[in-house]
Amino acid sequence: MSSAKSVPVSPLAPATYPDLPAIAGVGIATAEAGIRYAGRTDVLYVALAEGTQAAGVFTRSKCPSAPVDWCRDALTGPGARALVVNSGNANAFTGARGRDAVALTADIAARAAGCRPNEIFIASTGVIGEPLDATKFEGVLADCAGRTEAGSAAWAAAAKAIMTTDTFPKLATRQAEIEGVTVTINGIAKGAGMIAPDMATMLSFVFTDAALPQMVLQHLLSAGTKTSFNCVTVDGDTSTSDTLMLFATAKAGNTGITDAADPRLSGFRAALDDLLVELAQLVAKDGEGARKFVTVEVGGATDAASAHRIAMSIANSPLVKTAIAGEDANWGRVVMAVGKAGEPADRDRLSIWFGDIRVAHQGARDSAYSEEAASAVMREPGVTVRVDLGIGDGSARVWTCDLTSGYIAINGDYRS
Amino acid sequence: MSSAKSVPVSPLAPATYPDLPAIAGVGIATAEAGIRYAGRTDVLYVALAEGTQAAGVFTRSKCPSAPVDWCRDALTGPGARALVVNSGNANAFTGARGRDAVALTADIAARAAGCRPNEIFIASTGVIGEPLDATKFEGVLADCAGRTEAGSAAWAAAAKAIMTTDTFPKLATRQAEIEGVTVTINGIAKGAGMIAPDMATMLSFVFTDAALPQMVLQHLLSAGTKTSFNCVTVDGDTSTSDTLMLFATAKAGNTGITDAADPRLSGFRAALDDLLVELAQLVAKDGEGARKFVTVEVGGATDAASAHRIAMSIANSPLVKTAIAGEDANWGRVVMAVGKAGEPADRDRLSIWFGDIRVAHQGARDSAYSEEAASAVMREPGVTVRVDLGIGDGSARVWTCDLTSGYIAINGDYRS
Repeated sequence: MSSAKSVPVSPLAPATYPDLPAIAGVGIATAEAGIRYAGRTDVLYVALAEGTQAAGVFTRSKCPSAPVDWCRDALTGPGARALVVNSGNANAFTGARGRDAVALTADIAARAAGCRPNEIFIASTGVIGEPLDATKFEGVLADCAGRTEAGSAAWAAAAKAIMTTDTFPKLATRQAEIEGVTVTINGIAKGAGMIAPDMATMLSFVFTDAALPQMVLQHLLSAGTKTSFNCVTVDGDTSTSDTLMLFATAKAGNTGITDAADPRLSGFRAALDDLLVELAQLVAKDGEGARKFVTVEVGGATDAASAHRIAMSIANSPLVKTAIAGEDANWGRVVMAVGKAGEPADRDRLSIWFGDIRVAHQGARDSAYSEEAASAVMREPGVTVRVDLGIGDGSARVWTCDLTSGYIAINGDYRS
Repeated sequence: MSSAKSVPVSPLAPATYPDLPAIAGVGIATAEAGIRYAGRTDVLYVALAEGTQAAGVFTRSKCPSAPVDWCRDALTGPGARALVVNSGNANAFTGARGRDAVALTADIAARAAGCRPNEIFIASTGVIGEPLDATKFEGVLADCAGRTEAGSAAWAAAAKAIMTTDTFPKLATRQAEIEGVTVTINGIAKGAGMIAPDMATMLSFVFTDAALPQMVLQHLLSAGTKTSFNCVTVDGDTSTSDTLMLFATAKAGNTGITDAADPRLSGFRAALDDLLVELAQLVAKDGEGARKFVTVEVGGATDAASAHRIAMSIANSPLVKTAIAGEDANWGRVVMAVGKAGEPADRDRLSIWFGDIRVAHQGARDSAYSEEAASAVMREPGVTVRVDLGIGDGSARVWTCDLTSGYIAINGDYRS
């Protein structure tokens, strides 16, 4: 059994963490089940009040983990009564034993929560391909169910229990009004690289006391994902276990919303979108080995989808990411990444900025470009790369981090 | 002006380099034009006999360099009388000045060779976005034209003159018979990462004395690229300048071939394909920071194209490549890379091998798998990762190298 690696906290970690308020209908407990790590919590149990509705967005991997399969099925069920998350073992690529382990986990949790197994949602993150011994949850989940808490300390503990190679916990909170009723949204997330031993699947769980039907929740979550978690990349690798879920306990007592397009939802939608963006950015800020937070903005593309693909091509380019690590305003590599995206582009209309410094214009180096000014921009902990393709109105924004020797050290260490 | 970085020769470099024989109709000279590097050759001039036909395959980048645009145009011309290659400056993303620089280079070379400008082929590799001062070729190319050589020393000098971050020159030679006439094929290549200052575009030039029409050459080269250079990746980044050209001087005097499908070409085709594979593998073996040569074999896919995409997803995954650097038989990351390729795959039919050691079978860890045996495989300088998807007959093979802190150091250094 290995303990979590001791790596320094990301220099991009927030100076302080928000205190998350209680959300009616949400009770939290964490435990040490000894899944893989020693001396730290590795289980999160969240009790959800009767009537809680759930929505989910999952990995696009063609080889998803057993818990992802389970959650997709459970979303067609009656609702959510508990969420169980473990770190240390992803229960991915474990064959029939993986499915059995998920079913057993759901059984144990259902007994603890007093509900049916298909009202249990499950996520696992950690090593791939190792059988998960779900009997370790026996006793642990019942104990958790008997001592759930709702305050900010419980939320902080929840964010810590799901960490793997994360160097800091990720939490965010928002409030909004729906028809004059104040509702709260709390979210936690983890993720650093994308996968593997001592590893880094992206998981995020968002909770609200708003009363919203499942179809509305799913619509809001899917839409919000497009401009948040689907706009963040660390290494371009995609976990078999990526999971984002939204649970709504209905305890706030607002009524009357049946359609995601209802204009009375605009405040809630904005708050949710904003929270998702904050959590997604925190994931990029804790990318394995990250020393710079990078925003990539692409404008002037033929359409938004094209702009997004170009932005991701830039954000995933090892050469762009190593240049940023080296504080090098290397716009040639940005041109390369635009070119390799395969999207419409006209070399001679491209303009590129680092921060506010335009370094290239209309297909050549900007004659007014000062290497010194650009270098000053590159020394900042946050760097924005902006590209104007000059051929249309499509735009997109994505976030990533630089690629440093820290990433290699974390992922290339000899397995002990 | 910077000098080439001094980095140790790749541990995967060949123990010896082949002596390339003369090819009738090919004359070689190299020179120091001071494009960017000091104290080394940075210009290659190759004189080609009248009647030489050329074929080319170029970068798929939507932002190709000015020389790539030039070569594409020149291929529609009458033939090839000279090739000019410079290292140190890629003349890419240099706008109208870039086009002017290429045109001036062609003019100077045409005067040196006594031909028309559209019989000149040009390739440049080095820093992007810096104007190339083509007046530096004035005098240099005429001097080169007056002192071309044909022997093995000239070929060795040619391979060295086009290097950038390459740590060793790349040369290969083959012979074949066409209708009883022996023909020779010589090739040189360079490439290490994919782009940027002190940089690593892939360039390769192949020469033969065979007499073959342009359409046949183009067909053979395009087909051969699919199983060689299009199967090699270092970091997934695509240069704006990638260029592979095949020149045939017709001096061998074979006759009668008008169709690429002519069975009398089978020996030549096999020799050419083999030479292209050797050069492509040399590029992977000199990948920036490479310490392991990695072969990825995918079988059992729905078709060959799907197998190729899955193989490239594995070969480009930073997590797979760092695991190999760490000598870690981390098959979970291989599963991840299969899953993210987006191609048809059935998690529960996957089998994975490192070398001859099957580590995963039918969706789970192979019960017979010995960590020790797998570790022994991983310690070798060459590692083969094999995946059987178990759902069809499609197969593919690609080559890459591991991802080490050397790559970060080479590409992330502060620009001086």
